[in-house]
Amino acid sequence: MSLQGDYDENNIFGKILRGEMPCVKVYEDEVALAFMDVFPQSEGHTLVIPKTAARNFLDFPQDEVGAYMERVQKVAKAVEKGLSPDGIIITQFNGAPAGQTVFHLHFHIIPKMENGGLRPHAVSGPVDAAELELLAVKIRNAFN
Amino acid sequence: MSLQGDYDENNIFGKILRGEMPCVKVYEDEVALAFMDVFPQSEGHTLVIPKTAARNFLDFPQDEVGAYMERVQKVAKAVEKGLSPDGIIITQFNGAPAGQTVFHLHFHIIPKMENGGLRPHAVSGPVDAAELELLAVKIRNAFN
Repeated sequence: MSLQGDYDENNIFGKILRGEMPCVKVYEDEVALAFMDVFPQSEGHTLVIPKTAARNFLDFPQDEVGAYMERVQKVAKAVEKGLSPDGIIITQFNGAPAGQTVFHLHFHIIPKMENGGLRPHAVSGPVDAAELELLAVKIRNAFN
Repeated sequence: MSLQGDYDENNIFGKILRGEMPCVKVYEDEVALAFMDVFPQSEGHTLVIPKTAARNFLDFPQDEVGAYMERVQKVAKAVEKGLSPDGIIITQFNGAPAGQTVFHLHFHIIPKMENGGLRPHAVSGPVDAAELELLAVKIRNAFN
């Protein structure tokens, strides 16, 4: 699998952006959408995706990096305020060998508790939307 | 260890920024400095730090996020072009429980080969500067 390639609009995050698939949303504006990961590595694992079509961070337009990353920071701060984890891991995978599974750019925001491990991604089945909603409401309420 | 706290200018990256400690540099401008991680998780593991003092991404000034993250992207593209990995992991830790060990904001750019694992961070001793320089020159030459 190459790092290079064309954007395939039928990826699952493209479908979420077009409203063809549901998500448990925590934030949306003209630049980005943030929602709960259904295969969370920890409680509160949130994804932030840009509305611009791009496979990964390497091929994302340079002049849009700032606006998008400000949203990543904004959502990370809301996760911190809403869930009070001991730490937060922010990570992003470019290419399948790096761990990327959906080929629409996304940054992971993964809350970390002092003694809590991380689950491998997508090993256990998807978490129920109602359960994710309990976390999402705390994050949503934490935006200023 | 709390996510909150004051910036301690005696952290090792602060010393590198002030020229009090050496580094194998790949990029520098008025916004950011990039250099080889001496405890690499894979060959070519590169760090990008802002010149602005900040403990982590959560407390970094919002109006400087764009300029800094453009440098992170620029260096990641040079790592891709210079080293031709199969994938690239971009990651950033906020707080000791998340894995942060140096309390000056830094994004990790970690090249990943198809069948190459990642070493745990800082488990084996530091890599010799001369060895890092062989990788750094390839990255330096890849900037447009």
